[in-house]
Amino acid sequence: MLFFTNDYGEGMHPIVLKALTATNMEQLPGYGTDRYCREAADKIRAAAKCPKGEVYFLAGGTQTNQIVIDTMLQPYEAVIAADTGHISVHEAGAIEYSGHKVITLPGHEGKLKTADLARYLREFGADASSDHMPQPGLVYISQPTEYGTVYTKAELEALRYTCNAYGIRLFVDGARLGYGLMCDEADMDLADVARLADAFYIGGTKAGAICGEAVVFPQGNAPKHFLTSVKQHGGLLAKGRLLGVQFSALFTDNLYFQICRHAVEMAAQIKEDLLDKGYRLYVDSPTNQIFVVWPDSALGELARVVSYSYWEKYDKKNTVIRLATSWATTQKAVDQLKKIL
Amino acid sequence: MLFFTNDYGEGMHPIVLKALTATNMEQLPGYGTDRYCREAADKIRAAAKCPKGEVYFLAGGTQTNQIVIDTMLQPYEAVIAADTGHISVHEAGAIEYSGHKVITLPGHEGKLKTADLARYLREFGADASSDHMPQPGLVYISQPTEYGTVYTKAELEALRYTCNAYGIRLFVDGARLGYGLMCDEADMDLADVARLADAFYIGGTKAGAICGEAVVFPQGNAPKHFLTSVKQHGGLLAKGRLLGVQFSALFTDNLYFQICRHAVEMAAQIKEDLLDKGYRLYVDSPTNQIFVVWPDSALGELARVVSYSYWEKYDKKNTVIRLATSWATTQKAVDQLKKIL
Amino acid sequence: MLFFTNDYGEGMHPIVLKALTATNMEQLPGYGTDRYCREAADKIRAAAKCPKGEVYFLAGGTQTNQIVIDTMLQPYEAVIAADTGHISVHEAGAIEYSGHKVITLPGHEGKLKTADLARYLREFGADASSDHMPQPGLVYISQPTEYGTVYTKAELEALRYTCNAYGIRLFVDGARLGYGLMCDEADMDLADVARLADAFYIGGTKAGAICGEAVVFPQGNAPKHFLTSVKQHGGLLAKGRLLGVQFSALFTDNLYFQICRHAVEMAAQIKEDLLDKGYRLYVDSPTNQIFVVWPDSALGELARVVSYSYWEKYDKKNTVIRLATSWATTQKAVDQLKKIL
Amino acid sequence: MLFFTNDYGEGMHPIVLKALTATNMEQLPGYGTDRYCREAADKIRAAAKCPKGEVYFLAGGTQTNQIVIDTMLQPYEAVIAADTGHISVHEAGAIEYSGHKVITLPGHEGKLKTADLARYLREFGADASSDHMPQPGLVYISQPTEYGTVYTKAELEALRYTCNAYGIRLFVDGARLGYGLMCDEADMDLADVARLADAFYIGGTKAGAICGEAVVFPQGNAPKHFLTSVKQHGGLLAKGRLLGVQFSALFTDNLYFQICRHAVEMAAQIKEDLLDKGYRLYVDSPTNQIFVVWPDSALGELARVVSYSYWEKYDKKNTVIRLATSWATTQKAVDQLKKIL
Repeated sequence: MLFFTNDYGEGMHPIVLKALTATNMEQLPGYGTDRYCREAADKIRAAAKCPKGEVYFLAGGTQTNQIVIDTMLQPYEAVIAADTGHISVHEAGAIEYSGHKVITLPGHEGKLKTADLARYLREFGADASSDHMPQPGLVYISQPTEYGTVYTKAELEALRYTCNAYGIRLFVDGARLGYGLMCDEADMDLADVARLADAFYIGGTKAGAICGEAVVFPQGNAPKHFLTSVKQHGGLLAKGRLLGVQFSALFTDNLYFQICRHAVEMAAQIKEDLLDKGYRLYVDSPTNQIFVVWPDSALGELARVVSYSYWEKYDKKNTVIRLATSWATTQKAVDQLKKIL
Repeated sequence: MLFFTNDYGEGMHPIVLKALTATNMEQLPGYGTDRYCREAADKIRAAAKCPKGEVYFLAGGTQTNQIVIDTMLQPYEAVIAADTGHISVHEAGAIEYSGHKVITLPGHEGKLKTADLARYLREFGADASSDHMPQPGLVYISQPTEYGTVYTKAELEALRYTCNAYGIRLFVDGARLGYGLMCDEADMDLADVARLADAFYIGGTKAGAICGEAVVFPQGNAPKHFLTSVKQHGGLLAKGRLLGVQFSALFTDNLYFQICRHAVEMAAQIKEDLLDKGYRLYVDSPTNQIFVVWPDSALGELARVVSYSYWEKYDKKNTVIRLATSWATTQKAVDQLKKIL
Repeated sequence: MLFFTNDYGEGMHPIVLKALTATNMEQLPGYGTDRYCREAADKIRAAAKCPKGEVYFLAGGTQTNQIVIDTMLQPYEAVIAADTGHISVHEAGAIEYSGHKVITLPGHEGKLKTADLARYLREFGADASSDHMPQPGLVYISQPTEYGTVYTKAELEALRYTCNAYGIRLFVDGARLGYGLMCDEADMDLADVARLADAFYIGGTKAGAICGEAVVFPQGNAPKHFLTSVKQHGGLLAKGRLLGVQFSALFTDNLYFQICRHAVEMAAQIKEDLLDKGYRLYVDSPTNQIFVVWPDSALGELARVVSYSYWEKYDKKNTVIRLATSWATTQKAVDQLKKIL
Repeated sequence: MLFFTNDYGEGMHPIVLKALTATNMEQLPGYGTDRYCREAADKIRAAAKCPKGEVYFLAGGTQTNQIVIDTMLQPYEAVIAADTGHISVHEAGAIEYSGHKVITLPGHEGKLKTADLARYLREFGADASSDHMPQPGLVYISQPTEYGTVYTKAELEALRYTCNAYGIRLFVDGARLGYGLMCDEADMDLADVARLADAFYIGGTKAGAICGEAVVFPQGNAPKHFLTSVKQHGGLLAKGRLLGVQFSALFTDNLYFQICRHAVEMAAQIKEDLLDKGYRLYVDSPTNQIFVVWPDSALGELARVVSYSYWEKYDKKNTVIRLATSWATTQKAVDQLKKIL
């Protein structure tokens, strides 16, 4: 069975595991105060060219979105997201649980359009009853998006400009950030993200780690008492080393970027193979997720040899499925998939 | 430097690490649906003799307390705890963040007394204004307590009886459960805990795992849609395997109990050494934490060779410090400490 | 200046004020336990033909929506509403503040369509990742809607049927319920609402009272410890009599229905006058709110003599304005408005 | 039956009712934007000598405490109160519902001692694990307290000084403020309260109004978007006039102070009568609440002619009962009570 179900099928990258093993018996202080967390933070600040940045490590994506959004917002504020955004759909109401409305604007292949955002904020400002509505305080985007597409630098700058114009902040969900930065379409690097976002995170769970997301407040603008808030939300690990060691390894010798690049290259081959065989892409994603329209009649056969994710119905006779690659995807598996196609 | 600061100084037990390494490249489904989570749950049900039990794995103690208490309570209900209970003091208001009051009763060396509980519940029931107060819905105790003491089986049965009499539930925080079950004073086993509690958890972080707590609802009485609630609280790991693999290893060949027993024996030696040398114990804990009164004048000297935890001021000239052992404490370290004493 | 801005411009209906005055010096027990609250509840149960119904009095609409929805839902559940629903737009995130997502479906002149609801629930049930999403637990509708339109009995029955089919509940926001029940289009009475909804409220603030909404759980199905929850949400008035006396007066001799009928008749005259003069209705509302398209060029002139509500831009040259009537609208004012038109 | 149960037995003071009646048919804008709310705010600013003060009107005490505390605190902060404070005991967990812990210090006849507060804050600051605890952000006191006692100006200044020293704020619950300011022991006036508190409220419900509390942020320091937060908490009345008209009347010609003075004088007479007859006071309250120890054997007889509040058991043979006076207490009733004694 070829595994293309998702990008979190294996444990951690062997180099990461090696680092965890090598440091296992060291006696370290808890709660993220150990030297590996410090090292990892230093490396991330260097990679993102934000020397003043504050870096925190959390365990998972929904947790990170919940804590960052809740601490960046005032209690009377809401977050704006694409209607296809992860926080809008697949996080079990974690944002609302923390008291904030998710205001949704239409997603365009997963992306939030500056024009939609600007219109919303302009109309909100002009609405005489806006005191009776949640106050927009933050824009949430995913880079790459849930559909594998990427914002261009110009698009991100335009969102930033609009946020500035209306005095609200910008948060980038980077659960798969590396795949977005290393794809052929990418015209920005980590430093651009750090320059343009008020906060972002670098996803580890889907890119080499067994768990862990690195939250960056690039201007040293972490919400006050952030550690206490993390604890209050149940997100503080006693053995913070688990996250520090992993991210330190990922940000040594460009490992994080290399393994993301690998995954993107594997995906590009699969995409080419699919197009060669006449399959239709649902979204033309340049990153590690491929969304392809598959005839229902052929799905059973596929499922016998390839493990994929059901995405949604395309029409009465076809289904959108997702094939995902990761650092663990082998050339051999891609070649076998080609044969099957 | 001898490390007796806490019981979470090292990573994970070598056997646990080995299991994580061995399974690292397996492609597994996410969110706790993998076979290691199932295996671990089976082993825990067997060890706790609760075949109908439902077992969930979470990452840390505060998270577990928050999620279990919040899901077991109705929103208008409060939890009762000793005033020294972990949820009352050291969890950054995580319980209140989820909307519930922690009603505190006096702790007696960390323990909640049945008499205090019964009096509180009786007076609450008789109070004409009780509709205007949070409704007590759950009793929280730690076994062993934050002071290393253990409830006897009779004490736990009495608490259970009182809970039944007033129609409320009982939750046992077992962050260090193994140490409590394996100490010389222990007169109960895991099955007794499963029989007497409506929910409890088996702490991994402080007993062999790098992270992870196993929550057990022994009567198959997990709150409805518990997985969704876990996600909503930000506690669901994509790679649930991290927890399943560790707990499966810990509950193979009695590893969990053996390593806890080891820690307790190391602590017993230290306690004996301390008493031999005329030190005064602040609390006579039979588990892996030793609370000892230390002259302030000698603390500096100690700190140069031994790493310990400051606990609280005892009087003007003395301080209570904590020495903790774990699975990783060596006989050699204990012998060296003896020499130092 | 003719006042058609809204239906809450004056204080309370003179008969209600008279009742408040007559009972002012009586010494009554607090928190809704007085005899006027009991009387009012009895009269409402009789009017709604739900002898087992439980009736509670709250102060305002947003408060009522928040408390009823929060207490009817489990914490992991969400409420479904039309995207134009009051809770979706104009309640400052009060529902999300209490932890619940508002799932929005398209409104059709303010109404939720059964077909949309059934499709949503069917697809939700079929979605393999639905555990990672807020669980739909309640449908919220307004009768009449925010656009003054009314659900027919058949429509309400269809919604009820769909709710039953998917095991979720139905809540009717009746902030203007009387106007809906007394309009010419109405084909149901209060007993029908009580029969079809799991909970509803009868709005007083917009129909004769100075404040107050009567919440009805028609099957005696009030959430457990509802009074404690009301207090916990800050909604319990010490002098509950303020609400009981008013509702008792409103439900004596059909006052509530008569004054709503009066308002509807006034609105019908205005609508006829508008249509006679060639104005275009934005929505053809049969209740006490009239939404009419007005040329921008003529708005200034209107504003000098008539007070109305701006609703939204219709197109570049026209605006939708709202004219509202109430129990306090006089025939004389309507006649004057006719002359102005 | 003589009514001494509480101070909220009647509706509103006749002058207040007259004002409500006189303005009833005026057409006014909603949500507290009407001219009576403005007038009332002006009068309160003048009475409190805080020209920059911001004044908001809410409906009840628990609602006010919840909204003010929640908006003054950051989400990771807690409020400090006496363990007998209203928010600690009788508000159904409303503070915890909004996410904040109530840290309790021992009450001394209802009062928080500066020494206790300073010690708590000093030890908190010195605690190495304080990052893992809720951050104290606000001190809550009641003036007068739940036991009818009053803080002296020196005590309030000392609390203020301590708050300043630790960078936290001070909030005064004035549900019965007028009784505290008008008692013989009082050595401060409303302007002192405004000078020393970061926020306070002037209770209407228990002093002449049928509902309503006036919140004052004396330095113009209302939390940002306070109105939106009030709406979000369900506390915004459409017909804000109900509160504005009442407070405008109460703060015209010193009515508020006069009626509170009257109640205090009635209570003083009763207290004298009780002491004359040899009854023992439980607390020597100088305000409108009298806490007296009553032999259980004589309670039944008393209950036949006097309505009082049960407070708590004093010992096996005696009970503490409360007698309360208000603006509505007549000299005749006090004389009759004297005869009964």
